[in-house]
Amino acid sequence: MNTLMPTPIVRIVGDAESVCHDQLAIEEPLAVGIAFGPIRERRRETISITMRTPGDDADLAAGFLFAEGVISEPRQILEIRPHDAGNMVCIELHPELEVDLSRLDRRGYTTSSCGVCGKTSIDAIESNCDGPRSGGRSIPPSLIHSLPARLHDVQTTFKQTGGLHAAALFDMDGNLLGVREDVGRHNAVDKLIGAEFRAGRVPLDDRIILVSGRAGFELVQKAAVAGVPIFAAVGAPTSLAVELARRLSVTLLGFVRDGRFNIYSGAERIAL
Amino acid sequence: MNTLMPTPIVRIVGDAESVCHDQLAIEEPLAVGIAFGPIRERRRETISITMRTPGDDADLAAGFLFAEGVISEPRQILEIRPHDAGNMVCIELHPELEVDLSRLDRRGYTTSSCGVCGKTSIDAIESNCDGPRSGGRSIPPSLIHSLPARLHDVQTTFKQTGGLHAAALFDMDGNLLGVREDVGRHNAVDKLIGAEFRAGRVPLDDRIILVSGRAGFELVQKAAVAGVPIFAAVGAPTSLAVELARRLSVTLLGFVRDGRFNIYSGAERIAL
Repeated sequence: MNTLMPTPIVRIVGDAESVCHDQLAIEEPLAVGIAFGPIRERRRETISITMRTPGDDADLAAGFLFAEGVISEPRQILEIRPHDAGNMVCIELHPELEVDLSRLDRRGYTTSSCGVCGKTSIDAIESNCDGPRSGGRSIPPSLIHSLPARLHDVQTTFKQTGGLHAAALFDMDGNLLGVREDVGRHNAVDKLIGAEFRAGRVPLDDRIILVSGRAGFELVQKAAVAGVPIFAAVGAPTSLAVELARRLSVTLLGFVRDGRFNIYSGAERIAL
Repeated sequence: MNTLMPTPIVRIVGDAESVCHDQLAIEEPLAVGIAFGPIRERRRETISITMRTPGDDADLAAGFLFAEGVISEPRQILEIRPHDAGNMVCIELHPELEVDLSRLDRRGYTTSSCGVCGKTSIDAIESNCDGPRSGGRSIPPSLIHSLPARLHDVQTTFKQTGGLHAAALFDMDGNLLGVREDVGRHNAVDKLIGAEFRAGRVPLDDRIILVSGRAGFELVQKAAVAGVPIFAAVGAPTSLAVELARRLSVTLLGFVRDGRFNIYSGAERIAL
């Protein structure tokens, strides 16, 4: 899958101009549709449209549905099909799966009445999930310090465009197991977790996720739903990300760079 | 409005640990509701839920509705009211305004049938807008070079948290007219443009917008709808952002930092 597009530009350095080529990170819309319900009363709905870097669209769609709590096991997916020249994927769900579309309402337009729904929708933002299991190994700070360089080594598209977010999966020895780059940081995490979900490797009990940017609420939520015990970010966490991590006992690390990091939650998993 | 929350953390530098306080950027959900239609058949709908930095919520809501094409003039808004302890705002729209809720469908869950809607929704992503008017002044590269430092000077919350996106509005002489910081970069632009919209200063014919991060499709779209001729980003643009900027004749500048920048579109507005 090509993620780069060369384009002619004018480059300005001080007062000097030159015409040259630049590599752009490709951004395209992806619609995610689902087919669900009993065979005789099959329903089809478009549940999400996102701007994303093309590639790994089946993982993105599956990871999104898993993070939102619509599906919980790989066997609930019968098939994932591309449509519309790759700008749409349709997921055929198991006929016996009960789908609660209201779980997806918070992403946008809903039919609930104003004033009533506000509170309800906001409460619904916190997915029902237990978070990672407690216990397990604690890891030394030196291992955490080593992760950004390992991610940087494999951020191929970022190096060429400067314009992509990355999410990487590591085991507890710091071995890189997977990386995804995307123009949307939520997409990078959905693709990473979606691939593991489809392969039957969720919950991700003994795994670390590192993201190249900041740690917002929704990223920590996605990791927690997948059971990831340690979520690390090169950038800053937000207040709600810290609150969620503390409630679900996720170890949340921020500003992981240059031999330093901050522990916002779950310090027991770091060997101090 | 308080945008910072102090929290106790463990700071790791090499192998050394210390307990101290960190300042977190506050992230809270905001539901946007609208009331519309004739007085006797008034309807209320929640149209968006976004994670945002609290503050300027009325601007955020108005800017979002304007960018999506739901409203085009300030007088179409009768009132903007906070609800639910500030986690919701309701916009009372003029009874005679025709509201096309389908414009908002692309943000998430829709009722269109899968396969049919995919294509339609994707086409709908491009708002109907003319973009900025042509002509006007061209500005020297030195003025563009000066903008990031002017933005950095006023990014107060970012300096304390390292965790916020910023969007700034300048006139064609490089004077800073406004700045908004938010955990979501779309929100920062919605707040910036929403304030101008509510004050009756749109279209923003003689204005420059600078964002602290990357230039994605939706940010350029928001600027184009507001008639902004020059959109500059400290980070990289995406392919679709460049495509849209070229189609609508927006001057799109990327990697604006350290005395350099790239012109991706609309070079005629830069005095070379």
